[in-house]
Parts: sequence; structure tokens; C-alpha cells
Amino acid sequence: MNPFDHARIESLPSSNAEPCGHNLTLDNPISVDGHTQPGVRHEVPARCGRAVRVPAGQTLRIINTPGTQVCDTWAFNANNLNEFISMEHARAWIDRLIPREGDPLLSNRRRPVMTLTRDTSPGIHDTVIAACDLFRFTTLGVTEYHDNCSDNLRMAMQAIGQPVAEVPQPFNLWMNIPVDAHMQLGWQPPVSQPGDYVELRAEMDCIVAMSACPQDIIPINGQDCVPQPVHFELLG
Amino acid sequence: MNPFDHARIESLPSSNAEPCGHNLTLDNPISVDGHTQPGVRHEVPARCGRAVRVPAGQTLRIINTPGTQVCDTWAFNANNLNEFISMEHARAWIDRLIPREGDPLLSNRRRPVMTLTRDTSPGIHDTVIAACDLFRFTTLGVTEYHDNCSDNLRMAMQAIGQPVAEVPQPFNLWMNIPVDAHMQLGWQPPVSQPGDYVELRAEMDCIVAMSACPQDIIPINGQDCVPQPVHFELLG
Repeated sequence: MNPFDHARIESLPSSNAEPCGHNLTLDNPISVDGHTQPGVRHEVPARCGRAVRVPAGQTLRIINTPGTQVCDTWAFNANNLNEFISMEHARAWIDRLIPREGDPLLSNRRRPVMTLTRDTSPGIHDTVIAACDLFRFTTLGVTEYHDNCSDNLRMAMQAIGQPVAEVPQPFNLWMNIPVDAHMQLGWQPPVSQPGDYVELRAEMDCIVAMSACPQDIIPINGQDCVPQPVHFELLG
Repeated sequence: MNPFDHARIESLPSSNAEPCGHNLTLDNPISVDGHTQPGVRHEVPARCGRAVRVPAGQTLRIINTPGTQVCDTWAFNANNLNEFISMEHARAWIDRLIPREGDPLLSNRRRPVMTLTRDTSPGIHDTVIAACDLFRFTTLGVTEYHDNCSDNLRMAMQAIGQPVAEVPQPFNLWMNIPVDAHMQLGWQPPVSQPGDYVELRAEMDCIVAMSACPQDIIPINGQDCVPQPVHFELLG
């Protein structure tokens, strides 16, 4: 069987900016423009996305409330959405596949957008696997619309009036993709615990988008394949 | 010293489509629209880029003439430049960091653009390091224009009338980036031999862009840091 449904692919939007479908992300931003106050905890509902502004110098805490949930994360320069954390540029600066505490996260213009200042989890995250998208679920045999991280990014940014032109490689918090000595990749459930969090300090005014990954076909969000919410807040 | 020259970065084009400068790539396409004939060998001159059309079913051979030269490589759907080989999507399909013989190279719409059908080298290539760009050379202390793979892509495509909106993660042929058990990356010279080649069969009508990497500050193109040309041809 050919896993590539070309007729379906051709029927979907050909722009990289347009979602392939919709969910509640589009109608439920945390505020009209993504602003919030320090200390106010927000939810990224299961299968959905949210965007939040993080002014330079402030720190965003993202909390893996259930411990098993992957959170695809992006950050854009608030003054130029063409600049964003680019994992392929970030990796080249830190000389590692996975950032750890103290590492700056460089943009596609090779300057820090944010710094990973704190990580209470074992530090297992992913930077090499694309955000899931409707094309991914199509190859997995899904024939209806399926929530996905790429659309969640597009909708979360659109919901605060800041549509993006492309879907960068995300920083997949808590996603567990081991790499063996032969460059072979594995797909494993998170090793994080309930309540583990990472903190990201903004090095410029930025907008962070998060998607509570809706993958429920392979056990990347825990063995039971039930996507859960995550939470976030600006520190005071 | 702060390695991030914000004043310089702000002075460069803020679009991801516009080159940060120019070299001879812009004026020397292989033909006005990138078409060529099987069996005609073309050069990618040292420090420059070229684009070539590869019709579905035809095979492109890319030759590491000096053995030590990295060739950043991209392929776009000729009918929709918003679709291109996306290493983060390709990795998720082959479950490997580095493609090998027989592996399809998936697009950001999760279907094969090309297949890696032949590789006479030891198979050491890179998919995790961004194309070099003027921002990279700025962090390396360069203060004038420096040829770079990102601009070479933009110019090579512009030279055949097919400008691109973004610079995807390239398939960095022969680039040697070892990954250790702690996810640490190394930067090593190529292990390929003079005349080693890879063959890529087009699974759709596509346009392939190649840049003979102009990196001459770190020894990624051989210990002597002298960028060299590579060559390519369509097979008959």
C-alpha cells in the first residue's frame, strides 16, 4: 500500500501559513494580544495550542502537569516574526542535540531569543522531529481532521493577531527520541515526572507558542496514548 | 565579548527570502530556467550555488570531486516551492539522523520528493546543522560580506526565476557531525574520497539547489580550509 495519499495532500492548503483545519485553539487565546501578568497560571488544553508574550528579561515556566505530556514549543521575535528560535541554528551554537540548563536558544539570525535557565526533568527533550501535522496523521491512516501541533501553532498565533508564515522545527519539550551509535532514532514515552517544569528567560521581547501534542496513535505522550493539558505562567 | 552583533544583525534584510549580499551565483545559472540534459556535467564553483531541474523519474548524481567538500543540498517541488525536502520530516519517516541508500526524502507535506538511491561514500552526511549564513560568519568575527550557503540557495533559485521564501534545513552532503552518547555534536572534516558521489532519484518534478559550502574558517571542508567545487549531472 502506498502510505502517501497524494490526492488528499493536493486537496489541503498549499501555503505553509494556513492551517489544514481548526479546533478551539483559534477562539480561545489567553488574551486578545497574548499579554498576561506574572503569576497567572494558564492552561494549554489537551490537543490545543496557546501563545503568550514574554517581555525581554522575564521568565516563562512551562509545566508538564501530568508528567507524560509532550509540549511542542516555539518562540518568535515579537518585533519580526521572520526571526524565531531555530533548532538547527541553536544546535550549531551549543554543539548539542538537546539544550540543557544555561544554554541560549539561537534564532535563524544567530542570536539568543531565550535561554533555558531551569529544567527539573531529566533533560530529555527533542529537537530533531518535526511538529505533527495533518500529513503525518494521513500517513498513519487517519482520514478525518486530526488535531496537530503545526495547526495549533498557526491557530495560536493567529488567535492573538500574529499569523506566522512558516512552521519552524519546534523545541519538543519532554519528547523522548533516543539516538543510538548508528544514528538510529527511537520513539519513547517521556521520562519526566508530574509537575516537572522548564524555565525559559526571554533575551528579547518574544512570543512563545506551545502545543499540548495531540498525538494519540503512537505512545509518545505516555503509554496510554491519551493527550493531556500542560500549564504555563510568567514568573513574578 | 558579546558574540552577537545586534547592530549588524538589525542592518541586514529582515526577510528570510532576501540574500544578505551577492556573489557570482546570481549571474551564472546553468540555463535560464534550470533545465539541462542528461550526461552534461555541470560545476558548482567553489563558494557558489547552482539550481537544476530534475524531472520525476530522473536521477541526479552529485560528485564530491575533491573528496573534502561539503555540498549543502535542497530540493523543492517544482510546482509548489512551499513544498520541499524537510529533514525534520524526513528523519521522522526513516527513523534515522542520516539517510542511507534506499531512503526516501520526505517533504514538509510528508511525501517523497527524492530517494537516495546510491552513495559511494561511507555515508557520513549531516541533517542537523543549519546552512551557514552571514549571521554565522558574524559570530565567527567576520565583518565584511562572506559567501554563505543560505545566500547561495537564495541566489541559485532566483537566478532561474524561482525565488524561495525560506531556507530549509539542508541535506549537508559529506558534512561530518558525529553525535556522541550524550547528544554532544562534533565538527569534523569529511571522510569521503575524491570522486565519491550520491545519486538522488526524483519522485516528483523538482528543483535541486546545491551550494559548495564556503566555510573557510573552521575545517569542515577539509583540514586546509580551502573550499572547492563539486559537480553534478543528470544520468542518461
